[in-house]
Formats: sequence, structure tokens, C-alpha cells
Amino acid sequence: MYDIIIIGSGPAGMSAAIYAGRGEMKTLVLEELNAGGQMNYTYEVDNYPGISDMPTGAELSGRMKAHADMFNIEFKNEKVREIENHDGEIKIVKTRKGSYETKTIIFATGASHRKIGVGGEDRFYGMGVSYCATCDGAFFKGQDTCVVGGGNVAFEDALYLARFCKSVTLIHRRDTFRAAKSLVSKAMQNPKINIITDTVVKQINGDTTVSDVIIENVKNYRQQQLNVSGIFIAVGQDANSALAKNYVSCNEYGFIVTDNLMNTNIKGIYAAGDVRNSPLKQIVTAAADGAIAATSAINYING
Amino acid sequence: MYDIIIIGSGPAGMSAAIYAGRGEMKTLVLEELNAGGQMNYTYEVDNYPGISDMPTGAELSGRMKAHADMFNIEFKNEKVREIENHDGEIKIVKTRKGSYETKTIIFATGASHRKIGVGGEDRFYGMGVSYCATCDGAFFKGQDTCVVGGGNVAFEDALYLARFCKSVTLIHRRDTFRAAKSLVSKAMQNPKINIITDTVVKQINGDTTVSDVIIENVKNYRQQQLNVSGIFIAVGQDANSALAKNYVSCNEYGFIVTDNLMNTNIKGIYAAGDVRNSPLKQIVTAAADGAIAATSAINYING
Repeated sequence: MYDIIIIGSGPAGMSAAIYAGRGEMKTLVLEELNAGGQMNYTYEVDNYPGISDMPTGAELSGRMKAHADMFNIEFKNEKVREIENHDGEIKIVKTRKGSYETKTIIFATGASHRKIGVGGEDRFYGMGVSYCATCDGAFFKGQDTCVVGGGNVAFEDALYLARFCKSVTLIHRRDTFRAAKSLVSKAMQNPKINIITDTVVKQINGDTTVSDVIIENVKNYRQQQLNVSGIFIAVGQDANSALAKNYVSCNEYGFIVTDNLMNTNIKGIYAAGDVRNSPLKQIVTAAADGAIAATSAINYING
Repeated sequence: MYDIIIIGSGPAGMSAAIYAGRGEMKTLVLEELNAGGQMNYTYEVDNYPGISDMPTGAELSGRMKAHADMFNIEFKNEKVREIENHDGEIKIVKTRKGSYETKTIIFATGASHRKIGVGGEDRFYGMGVSYCATCDGAFFKGQDTCVVGGGNVAFEDALYLARFCKSVTLIHRRDTFRAAKSLVSKAMQNPKINIITDTVVKQINGDTTVSDVIIENVKNYRQQQLNVSGIFIAVGQDANSALAKNYVSCNEYGFIVTDNLMNTNIKGIYAAGDVRNSPLKQIVTAAADGAIAATSAINYING
């Protein structure tokens, strides 16, 4: 019987494991892929406060895993298929290999950035293709960049990048924007930002890193080449909540709804990190969520 | 004219500085004491995810300061006395040495644990005297400890410590408790926890670390010696909000009220870390708050 089962091992899951372990909870982390989650795909982490030697995301994952390993945490590389008796006192987490009883569960399964599905997108991920301007923008100082999307995040990203990039081209497939009008007009007034509507990206080109993108007008099919070293794709993200949504409340976008103690609507089930309705999706915010979720689970178990 | 002035340089302030700097904001950090805040008084940090070499709190402060220094942040060792035009578009932050115009302000002034004011309390701080079981409890595995207080936190601390300490004596000056009944009865049932009421701590003794405490019954004045190597003082904490409360809404306990984007009730003023109504006061949660506050400030400034 476990005290806490953590599903997922990105920064939220790993931090929860560290806090659970320090609280001497019998803890199991279940991860279907590699420890670290989305962090693994980050070229260089320079925004995790206190770690300034610029590790790759995979290195930082390794450090968090090593940290969790100090506290006697069990890790298993298994995919959770089902949870039985999720609203009971003893919950049963099932994988193909086993069935694990636990008093509490922390969902830390993260989120995935939506892709635009064009050639070069996967190949240059981390080499010019990014899904997070706040995370990676600083690496493109003085360079030509583009942003894909028409919502708030796309415009926030464009305005963020315009402060230090040489130019930012915002590419949107429609001629209207979901983004707030104030953001759109601010972007239109910014001399560094060029907005191209009715246009999609067809191809991302480069050698080792991105050199240009081919864009196409959706009305007249005219193509043009845009020389950029960075392309920021801001067309939304999906919560990895396919499992969780069977057991706890999610919002209209599929993110698990929690309060500020990471409680879901079910007693003894918590969520932490990108999979929940968190206001900013960063490594440090996911780690903080994990600490809070584990502390809530510990207090629940202790009485 | 600054974009962002951050008041305080603990983990919340430093993280806000890193995020502000990465966003190329003209940023000033004002700190009246030493960079690092409460972290400086922590013996060993083993719960900041990803940093497992057990730095002292002062070392971790140094690493965060070095990290912020990479991003062209101005630091000044000055105490803020007053803010003029706090609800205007341009706010003026005044110290004895200068007057600084800024578009936004982030309060990151932290909190202070209440002391019991007895001999040995300051001398053994970090050497057996702790104000945070979640932070320091893990260092007292297998040892005799005591907790001072009668509220939820005191009982949560006692139950937390009882999982791995040899014994926990809970000392409370009254014979009734503010803590939830469920916590009190769980503690009473725990064979490792001994509850002593109507009793106060008079003195904390030791050589280099704590060896025992002298306690006294408030009714019959009988004293006794309690051999413990750790004393966890859980009698509350005070927000360092003497300045902030003149300008933004605080709750009944003096903590600044924010939403989950760290907005206060005044446009362009944010709060982060222990000074706000945060649900868990840890280094990593303060750092996450700082990242969110800076990002909110950046989005506000950018439009």
C-alpha cells in the first residue's frame, strides 16, 4: 500500500516526489516515457532560478531525478491504464504490469504544445523551433523571428520578442484575431512587428538550425520565403489529461481544475504542473505545484 | 524610468528579477538587508528541486543573485520609505537616497516567523531551532524533538515529524487548541506524540547545537528539562507588509491579497512569495510566484 502515487515525472512530479520523500511517505512515481517530461526537449534552461550553468533540459531532468532518488522514492516505467475506486479511501492504480493500492494520487502528466504539422517542425525543435517565447525567446536576441498564431499568447509572444529581437513577423491563418484588441493594436503600432494574415507556414528550412520558413497565402496560394532563425508556434496546448478526465473535473480546455492547494474535486486526488489550470507554465511553477500537491497529500494522510 | 521595481531580494524577488531581465525590462531591485531574505538563515537546503548538493541558504542566495546578475539587473541596497502616485501610470518609489520612477512594482518583502523570545532562541537558530518542519524536519530523523504552538501548523508539524522522529513533544501555553479537532485527536492517538498543555518554554540550552529545553507550567510554575535536539516553533508568522499595506489590500493577518497571476488590487502592483496570501511558504513556491509576477508585469507593460 502506497501513501502517494505520482503519475508523471516532469518537474511537477519530481518535486512532488522530493517533498513526499522528505515527509517519509511511501511513494511511487509512474512514468510511461522518460523522467523529465517536456523539460527533456528544452535546449538550454536559463530561467530556473539558482541554476545558472545553462543545463540542457535533459540534464536538469537528471538532476531532479537524482535529487528525488535521495529520498527513497520508487520509480516504475509503466503507463497507467485505469484507476479503480478513485473516490474511495484506498484507490487502485492499474498498469499493464501491476495493480497498486494507494491513499492518494497526484496527476502530474503535463501538457503538449500543439504542432502545426509541417516539414522541419520536429527536426528543428530546440534548434530554432520553439513553443514558448518566455522560455526560449532570450536566445534570439538581435535576430529575425516569427510567431505563428492569432490568440493572446501569440500576441504576447510577439510583443515580448519585439523588445530584443531584430524583427518579429506574426503569421496567422485568418484575417481576424482571437487576441484582445489592446494586444492587437499594440502589436500593430510596434515598428518591429509585422503582421501577415490569411497565411500559413508550409515548411521550415535550415541546416543545423532554422534559416527560413516558407509561408503561403490561403486565398491566392502565393508562397514566399521568410528568413528567420526562430519560429515560435503559439497555436495552443493540450493537457495530457486523457486518463485524469475520467476521474476528476477538467475545464473546457481539458486542464484539471484545482484550488490553490492543488486539490481536485475528489478527496485524495491532486494535480500539479502543466496538466492543471495553472496560470503560467514554466519549470519553476510546475516544481512549486508539485511541492504544494505533496504537502496537501501529506496533510491529508496525516489527518 | 524603470519598467519594474522589485522590493525585496529573497527567492521571490530574485526570480522576478531573472524573468524581468530575460524579458529585457529595465529593472531595479531594492533590498534593505542582504540579498536572499529568509533563505540566508537556513542551514541546508535539500528541498529546492534539482539542487541536491545541499547548499546553505546563503549559498543558494548567492547562486540566485549570480543568476539574476546575468540579466543586467540593477541592485541597490536601499530601504523603501514611501511610494508616491502608487495608483497612477508612473509610480515613484522613494528611499532615503533617491526617488525612482517606474511603471510597475513587485512587493517581494517576505515574512518573519514569530519568535517566542527566550534565551537560546537566536543563538541556536539553524542549529536545532527551526520555524519550519517542512523545511528542516528531515534533518532530525530518529531524534527527539518538540513543537511549540497550538494551531493547525503546530499539529501538522507534530504529525509530520512523528513519521520519522523518535519522539515529538507538543508544548502549548493553554489547555485548549485553535487547531482543527481532527488534527488534535490524530495527534493524541499517535504514540510518538506527547502533548503538554498550560506550559511554556523558558530557555533553550545546548553547546553547539540544541541539547534540551526548560519548560514551565504556567499554573504551578514547576519547571522541567526536556531533552530534545530540535525545537520547532510554530506560533505564526508576520508578513513584512508594513510598507505595502499603505498601498494595496492585505488580509486580516497582514498578507497581501493577490489573484493567481500575482495581481494586487492596484493596477501595475504585484506581490510574490511569503508576503502574499500564498498557500505554502517554501523557496520553490516563492520562486514560482516571482516568475508569475514578473510575467504579469511584462504583459501589462507590453500592452
